[in-house]
Amino acid sequence: MMYQDGQAVKLHGMVHSHRALGEITFFDLRQRTDLLQCVMNSDTRINGADQLRDEQAIRIEGLMQAEPRARGGFECHVMNIEVLSSPAETRPVHLGKRIRNVGLDADLSLRPITLRHQFYRAMFRLQEGICRGFRDYLASAGFTEIHSPKIVASGAEGGSNIFRLDYFGRKAYLAQSPQFYKQMMVGVYERVFEIGPVFRAEKHSTIRHLNEYTSMDFEMGFIETFADIMDVEEAMLKHLLELLGSEYKAEIELLEVKLPSIDRIPRVRFDQAKQMVAEKYGRKIKNPFDLEPEEERLIGELFAQEHNSDFVFVTHYPSKKRPFYAMDDPKDTRYTLSFDLLFRGLEITTGGQRLHDYQQQCDKMLAKGMDPTDFADYLMIHKYGMPPHGGLGIGLERLLMMLTGQNNVRYCALFPRDQSRLEP
Amino acid sequence: MMYQDGQAVKLHGMVHSHRALGEITFFDLRQRTDLLQCVMNSDTRINGADQLRDEQAIRIEGLMQAEPRARGGFECHVMNIEVLSSPAETRPVHLGKRIRNVGLDADLSLRPITLRHQFYRAMFRLQEGICRGFRDYLASAGFTEIHSPKIVASGAEGGSNIFRLDYFGRKAYLAQSPQFYKQMMVGVYERVFEIGPVFRAEKHSTIRHLNEYTSMDFEMGFIETFADIMDVEEAMLKHLLELLGSEYKAEIELLEVKLPSIDRIPRVRFDQAKQMVAEKYGRKIKNPFDLEPEEERLIGELFAQEHNSDFVFVTHYPSKKRPFYAMDDPKDTRYTLSFDLLFRGLEITTGGQRLHDYQQQCDKMLAKGMDPTDFADYLMIHKYGMPPHGGLGIGLERLLMMLTGQNNVRYCALFPRDQSRLEP
Repeated sequence: MMYQDGQAVKLHGMVHSHRALGEITFFDLRQRTDLLQCVMNSDTRINGADQLRDEQAIRIEGLMQAEPRARGGFECHVMNIEVLSSPAETRPVHLGKRIRNVGLDADLSLRPITLRHQFYRAMFRLQEGICRGFRDYLASAGFTEIHSPKIVASGAEGGSNIFRLDYFGRKAYLAQSPQFYKQMMVGVYERVFEIGPVFRAEKHSTIRHLNEYTSMDFEMGFIETFADIMDVEEAMLKHLLELLGSEYKAEIELLEVKLPSIDRIPRVRFDQAKQMVAEKYGRKIKNPFDLEPEEERLIGELFAQEHNSDFVFVTHYPSKKRPFYAMDDPKDTRYTLSFDLLFRGLEITTGGQRLHDYQQQCDKMLAKGMDPTDFADYLMIHKYGMPPHGGLGIGLERLLMMLTGQNNVRYCALFPRDQSRLEP
Repeated sequence: MMYQDGQAVKLHGMVHSHRALGEITFFDLRQRTDLLQCVMNSDTRINGADQLRDEQAIRIEGLMQAEPRARGGFECHVMNIEVLSSPAETRPVHLGKRIRNVGLDADLSLRPITLRHQFYRAMFRLQEGICRGFRDYLASAGFTEIHSPKIVASGAEGGSNIFRLDYFGRKAYLAQSPQFYKQMMVGVYERVFEIGPVFRAEKHSTIRHLNEYTSMDFEMGFIETFADIMDVEEAMLKHLLELLGSEYKAEIELLEVKLPSIDRIPRVRFDQAKQMVAEKYGRKIKNPFDLEPEEERLIGELFAQEHNSDFVFVTHYPSKKRPFYAMDDPKDTRYTLSFDLLFRGLEITTGGQRLHDYQQQCDKMLAKGMDPTDFADYLMIHKYGMPPHGGLGIGLERLLMMLTGQNNVRYCALFPRDQSRLEP
């Protein structure tokens, strides 16, 4: 907010923190996104409570005064305070200090309150900004937003990491991704996107996995090669970072985020990346079919050093490790026309071209030991006609985690879900 | 798209439908949102297939020619066709006709294909427009977008209509609404919104219920009365309808939607509305605590006739029928500071002011036979301080249903979930 010196104001907010210095009490008023420094003295009238306390909801009348030491250059000299509500108990954590003084576990248990810290207020404003950037760019590029079901009859990503539920006596699952549905919608609108929850019953606990997270997905038809998908992601990320830089300046500063700059994101084949890291860092290749987290980190490091890029597309993942809907590279069917995007050494996107031909998709299912009749609804689009197409999914919390330099993805979900956490 | 007469074009799309008239074949090219009328003759070259078929993905080269009888005033005279993919089988439904010639059940079973009909393409573009309008208005009014968890430890709306799942050996539920979380976030950002899936295990099958639907929720702090919430909804709806009227003209026309105009939405007390309908239509009041669907319909009819309004806010619902977090009217605690919004006789919104005082909330829970210790996480916000606040939830599919005049909400969800439908 911009104020003028001497301006009379009527404002409202929560008492974020306060401290008395003799006759004078300073307090921070927590507004929608800002904190405003306020000053009261013995003349200030309080109605609705006998004294000022943290987490009271108040309305104030006062005069704005220029104060170079205050955030935003102004402080409010308060004449009247109306207390609308007072807490029943004193807040169990300090929110006034820049550094949060609780450990992650206590923090998570107290999330309804700890989220009121400026750290989190900035964090989840940036989360909003990422969604806006994603959506706005794709809308401008002719994508239609969709809402696909989360209760499903079969998993798209396979494996055992799927939540089961009883659906009126039938077995049902929580969607691991909107994969089937966004492909179906390519037949309808050619280009679609969705931001929504996905569910993974992964049993391992790591700093980068959540059992429920927000996936930003898009899928597009009439691609010439799977590089088209990377091109769209690259342009989207550029737009997104510009948006954050222009409209979320305060949050970027508060979290001391160094926004990456994107020119052209380097693209490297999976097998080459693996080889480069093995050579540069003297590592043995243990598993030729997948990247270990440490390898991803080193690929990120290598491309940061040698190509000055925080991002790198790793392409042509082995067919063995990609799902049944991935299109194999016709030049070498041991690899797929697919990619991951690594951001500062962590995978934040998986994408690629999908099979669109009915016979090819059935054959690949059979080769993987799957029965195409189990997927008759999905295969309808292949049977009755689909354009060449592909797409990707971006983990919102992971992107935010790497952007803000957190060491745990739980800092980047409002109310994270992991094996031990179903609350709050 | 705007074209010039004689303009050379390169386009792509799916063959939506075609018919041969002697030497000439007309076909509709299904583009992202439009259909383009195309003409080919015996000179037109086809590569990649021996003939043109519906649901082929094609690239074409041709010349645009002014043709007043064609949609958009132009048709494309096609010189070259490159067929990128062909379906394995002929599409099981006609999509070319204006009227869909399949019943709802067959339609639902074939949704991956029937959604390609212009009816549905227009329908779900309008769905997108509604979400845009909701989001854009609220963002401009200082609301922050949030993503709350869908796997939860307890239901916010109570009752038996909740889906259960096993969460790593613990009992968990699918969120019936983001209620608890959006209230928590009012303490963080004052104003928040979310568009996301909610899950209701309702065992009755009606034309207006889905077991999974998309809820558009907002929640706002520092309200003076619960009328503030209705004011925001009213302004949001005005913005939304203007957006649809300006940016979704083609879809509005295709679906023959009569956009409602909003000046000031009438507001009537629940008990008065009930009485008015009883008098005007000679109905006996059977249940004084709830509105029957037929009563809602008649209230809608009455306000359409007498106040020329497609919308009506019904306020002050009985405490008995509102959830434990609803604030009672201090003037008469048998009623709550709450409302529903009826649109053309159907409830599309439930909202109201929430309790923010810890003791009052605990007391109300106890009076309803609930144990506050079961809701310790939720009650943290009341205990440690909350402003007066309230909010609402809008059923996206229902709003779309009433806007477009459908007789079944299943037409307004891409892949609806009901008791008998978990697929596609």
